[in-house]
Amino acid sequence: MTRNLERLFRPRGIAIFGASEDFRKINGRPLKFLLDQGYTGGIFPINPKYETLAGLRCYPDLCTIEAPVDLAIIAVPAPAVMPAFEACIEKGVGGAVIFSSGFGEMNAEGRENELRLAARAREASVPICGPNTVGFWNAYEHVLATFSQAGDGDVRGGPVAFVTQSGAFGTAIVALLRQRGISLGYFVNSGNEADLTFADLLGFVVEDPQVRVVAGYIEGLKDGPALLAVADRALALGKPIIVAKVGRSGAGARAALSHTGSLAGSDRIYSGAFRQRGILRVDDEEELLDVVAAFSHSALPKGPRVALVTHSGGAGVLMADRAESEGLEVATLTEQTRTALREVVPAFGSIGNPIDITAQFIAEPRLLRQTLEIVFADHGVDLGIFYLGMMDAFAETIIEQFRAVQRGTEKPLLVAWAAAPAHARAKMNELGIANFPTATRAVVAARALAGFARVRADHALHARPAAFVPPPLPAGEPRPLPSARAFELLQDYGIPVAPWCVVGDAEGAVRAARSLGYPVALKVESPDIRHKSDAHALALGLHDDEAVRHAFERVVAAASNYDSAAHIDGVLVQKMIEDEVEVIVGVQRDPVFGPVVMAGLGGIFVEVLKDVSFRVAPLALADAYEMLRELRAFPLLTGARNTEPVDLDALCALIVNVGRLAVERASSLVELDLNPIKASGRGAVAVDALAVEAPP
Amino acid sequence: MTRNLERLFRPRGIAIFGASEDFRKINGRPLKFLLDQGYTGGIFPINPKYETLAGLRCYPDLCTIEAPVDLAIIAVPAPAVMPAFEACIEKGVGGAVIFSSGFGEMNAEGRENELRLAARAREASVPICGPNTVGFWNAYEHVLATFSQAGDGDVRGGPVAFVTQSGAFGTAIVALLRQRGISLGYFVNSGNEADLTFADLLGFVVEDPQVRVVAGYIEGLKDGPALLAVADRALALGKPIIVAKVGRSGAGARAALSHTGSLAGSDRIYSGAFRQRGILRVDDEEELLDVVAAFSHSALPKGPRVALVTHSGGAGVLMADRAESEGLEVATLTEQTRTALREVVPAFGSIGNPIDITAQFIAEPRLLRQTLEIVFADHGVDLGIFYLGMMDAFAETIIEQFRAVQRGTEKPLLVAWAAAPAHARAKMNELGIANFPTATRAVVAARALAGFARVRADHALHARPAAFVPPPLPAGEPRPLPSARAFELLQDYGIPVAPWCVVGDAEGAVRAARSLGYPVALKVESPDIRHKSDAHALALGLHDDEAVRHAFERVVAAASNYDSAAHIDGVLVQKMIEDEVEVIVGVQRDPVFGPVVMAGLGGIFVEVLKDVSFRVAPLALADAYEMLRELRAFPLLTGARNTEPVDLDALCALIVNVGRLAVERASSLVELDLNPIKASGRGAVAVDALAVEAPP
Repeated sequence: MTRNLERLFRPRGIAIFGASEDFRKINGRPLKFLLDQGYTGGIFPINPKYETLAGLRCYPDLCTIEAPVDLAIIAVPAPAVMPAFEACIEKGVGGAVIFSSGFGEMNAEGRENELRLAARAREASVPICGPNTVGFWNAYEHVLATFSQAGDGDVRGGPVAFVTQSGAFGTAIVALLRQRGISLGYFVNSGNEADLTFADLLGFVVEDPQVRVVAGYIEGLKDGPALLAVADRALALGKPIIVAKVGRSGAGARAALSHTGSLAGSDRIYSGAFRQRGILRVDDEEELLDVVAAFSHSALPKGPRVALVTHSGGAGVLMADRAESEGLEVATLTEQTRTALREVVPAFGSIGNPIDITAQFIAEPRLLRQTLEIVFADHGVDLGIFYLGMMDAFAETIIEQFRAVQRGTEKPLLVAWAAAPAHARAKMNELGIANFPTATRAVVAARALAGFARVRADHALHARPAAFVPPPLPAGEPRPLPSARAFELLQDYGIPVAPWCVVGDAEGAVRAARSLGYPVALKVESPDIRHKSDAHALALGLHDDEAVRHAFERVVAAASNYDSAAHIDGVLVQKMIEDEVEVIVGVQRDPVFGPVVMAGLGGIFVEVLKDVSFRVAPLALADAYEMLRELRAFPLLTGARNTEPVDLDALCALIVNVGRLAVERASSLVELDLNPIKASGRGAVAVDALAVEAPP
Repeated sequence: MTRNLERLFRPRGIAIFGASEDFRKINGRPLKFLLDQGYTGGIFPINPKYETLAGLRCYPDLCTIEAPVDLAIIAVPAPAVMPAFEACIEKGVGGAVIFSSGFGEMNAEGRENELRLAARAREASVPICGPNTVGFWNAYEHVLATFSQAGDGDVRGGPVAFVTQSGAFGTAIVALLRQRGISLGYFVNSGNEADLTFADLLGFVVEDPQVRVVAGYIEGLKDGPALLAVADRALALGKPIIVAKVGRSGAGARAALSHTGSLAGSDRIYSGAFRQRGILRVDDEEELLDVVAAFSHSALPKGPRVALVTHSGGAGVLMADRAESEGLEVATLTEQTRTALREVVPAFGSIGNPIDITAQFIAEPRLLRQTLEIVFADHGVDLGIFYLGMMDAFAETIIEQFRAVQRGTEKPLLVAWAAAPAHARAKMNELGIANFPTATRAVVAARALAGFARVRADHALHARPAAFVPPPLPAGEPRPLPSARAFELLQDYGIPVAPWCVVGDAEGAVRAARSLGYPVALKVESPDIRHKSDAHALALGLHDDEAVRHAFERVVAAASNYDSAAHIDGVLVQKMIEDEVEVIVGVQRDPVFGPVVMAGLGGIFVEVLKDVSFRVAPLALADAYEMLRELRAFPLLTGARNTEPVDLDALCALIVNVGRLAVERASSLVELDLNPIKASGRGAVAVDALAVEAPP
């Protein structure tokens, strides 16, 4: 569902329900902001108590306004919200932003009112931002539909859009961005998201050609696939989405039938989904600021090879460490570069990378410029970071050098300046020189630039399947499929399964074993026995007819013994596959993202080390590769310990097919575990499967 | 070797070699600083060019000065340093700080001159700080023996001492500390450490009763054990040592015969050693500042249970996440506390933990105070963090509330204030209210406080063995001991070894196998065959006499085949121990810390996942426990996967004994690998050992 938010965000006229002249109040501030920031459309305060407000005509109600109203700001107590919104529908406004609290965040009654509001919004096609929001602004057109403290400051339309699920925290982040010289084209607080969700709002701002960088703050999404679709769109437009997502520990593991289900902390699914679609996740508000600052001020580097230049050996080592651990490459300089540096850098400095030009550059400022120019001329360098500390007296000269260097190259130069004087920071912000207060923060920001450059290039090369919006699952108790049925399902999707057949008696088992080839395993086939090993209703490693005959009787007896009422469909005879790496691949239904695929190595890796990775279905082949590469145990797939490397192509194809199955069966599949899959140089074969489906 | 640094750091008179009137120059600044900061002892500039300098009498040389000189500042070109230092020895000064560069950092000649300087310093018992140092200050007594830019500012004697291996980076950190309202009692740059090392210098400042918090910046230590001894002393005095150590990626793995050796990145050894002795390691300069600020301003909490109070749900969730991942506990509030909060906190807020008091506290400031007082009265809360953003207009009132809360409790209150107005930060710094610019940084600082509180309590309860200074190893090619000799060595130290004996013929092997009990393993015993499995010179899982007879011939033949010149001492027959968890414990000789012990689980854990931990020998039992607990695979020792839990007491005792062996054999042991150790509920037994010794 694409919503038309044009009139909401770019209104020709704005009505304010509950407008007030007290500019300190929630219902007074938007009027003040609109006037202060020079909104040029019609402003229509609504309040029956006043004739005029702040020199404007004040209206008793919406219908009295004769001019067109595109946006309604509703800042009245909760009980008055619904009548106000009905008036908006009547009038045909283009959208409403509802500041009022007392809805879903309050109690059950509020929740119900919120649902009613949302239903009316959709029926009438009048989108709502909120309720319980501090509102939004579109600085390009001076639309200040907010009561946030941040509306009071310098609201200029910069290249950054910021959508936040938290009003107070979002406001603080805006203030911090402003301190960094970054102004927001859009600031949007999604509030309770009764109608418009975070993804809807992000989807709008990402399309504005004035927006180059998109930032978000997320506590929990309502519609994961919608965000993923926006992410695809942003990548196509070449714009980074930088997101701080909290609630890592919150959701916890949910009870579930399968391994896949019980392992899923929803936060890890978020991380997997973000990586899959090129959304840059940051750890906290400070990293958000740093990364947004980097993208606002810097070009993208062509690669991850960084030159580190300092006047302090210590800072150089610190940056080199961090660069390596963040996945940047500390560039290897050419002999030519080193020769040129030797001419310039003092003998007691260092021309390795990191390069230490020593404090000598204070006496000879051109040393700074020359060094950076030499370094940027090296084809093995993609970007540079210069670190310095203090230098209050020389700030102007130093900044001039940066400017000169920047003019001469397309490669990004990031500046890490410890204890920079305030005027130097202000000057750099003004000039668009990306600057950071510490060495490590500059490196983290550089990593984000290089990482996004790679993601964008990948995106241009490899098409990814579109995000999938799953249909709802039918209600009712989910049931596992019989193993044979689960195997058939896998085979329908091209997923190799170890050869098997279901038999009814011991002689049938022997015939099956001979035809499959020894050794074989026997497992009871019963919808009532989910964990066959708990029931001892299976036998592994059977090498001859006699063993199979005995095992048949034993397995059936054990099943009856375990549950005398169990319905027994027969016994499954399956060819044993040994001496391979065990892999687990699973599917679960995530409430936010729909069907998600998990992969990990068998045994301790999943059970003890929780070494698994997630992606949202459907997956591209590249997603499957990245999932595996994320595993700490990945080296075991590529021949660590002198074992044969696993056929990764086959394993990735299997994972992709599992994703396809998850999508195409999304109207019934609740969970799926392929556990284990036996992987080797010859391929990847599922030997056991648990598929849980919703009732038809 | 304890050095007497009293006269160096608390001089009655200071001579300055190469003194200059140009206060912008390296040799001019100390004179300016001493005068500006009010040093009350004698100041004696030495420079034959001047009669007076800055109104002081200037001397042609040191011997002309009649008054006592305790400290000499040497700021002359490198070639003039040695003559100046000889004059210092002659005069009997108490110590010298040498600014001059052009020594070890420059070239081989400089390195030699530096060694000569150091040798003279030790012979004459005149300690040297430097060369190539920006110097030091002792602010309590206004001794500014530095040319650092930082000497120019507000040098008041605060409770923090800072010792740094980097002059430029250290200076930047001082500036940042000052911005945070933290003044340093001592600032010391250790320079090239020709004579006095980082540990020597830290050891001095930690003893000053005016110092409460010790900070350090390390690139690489010369004497690890000396630092560990200082750390013990600091713990006994109850003072935290907070250290930023860089060079994580630098050292890399060194070539070595054993697993232990090849796994050791020296940086992981630093981390292990720091943890063992209660040194708090921080990741970068910003975390250093935050943690130092926390210790400077806050009391220690009694435990890790934190209350998180905010006016922003978002910041609350962010802090709760981070608190959990950092190892703090988000406190569970009592029903009584919740009832009391319900009376105070607005209905649209939240009284869980995190507690959201909403923006209502702006209108009712006492809401802030009341909430915090209620929370601190809860016995389940050890410390609190309050988060807020902006609030420029209300800063004074808010800070007043903090003050009032702080006065009423001994529990620490940390303030995270995003985009705090500058005057508010200054005010909080002045009042000693620990404040941080972001939510996460406050949490990280809180974790450091709680972590140190625990370390200090542990230290008071459990005595740790003193740090060990190893003797040098003899030069020459190290050689592995025969297995039997290695086993005997282990047994000498009470380390259980699977029963074995060495035999010379097949019948001897059969007799040995019968007496040890089947199954057994046979391994060739030859000093020339280090990797028996590569040579196929071993046989495992032998169950009867016949198998042993065959295996004997096969093993000997394989050995001769592999290396026809190999000397064969016999064949080792050993009882097989199966179905246990495999553990690896090793020893290697670290160039910084001496003998260090490594522990990890066998197979993929060590080889692929590098899941190992290090401690410096000797170890306390508690160290061994912590080593194991650090392993990601630790759950496998405690009965994950429904296996029998390992006897941790036995395994830890084994590790402690390995540490004892490493110390007592430190004059010859180069490396030791117990690989594998079979651990189970019945104990821990080494089944193979490689001991490498230096030649006698």
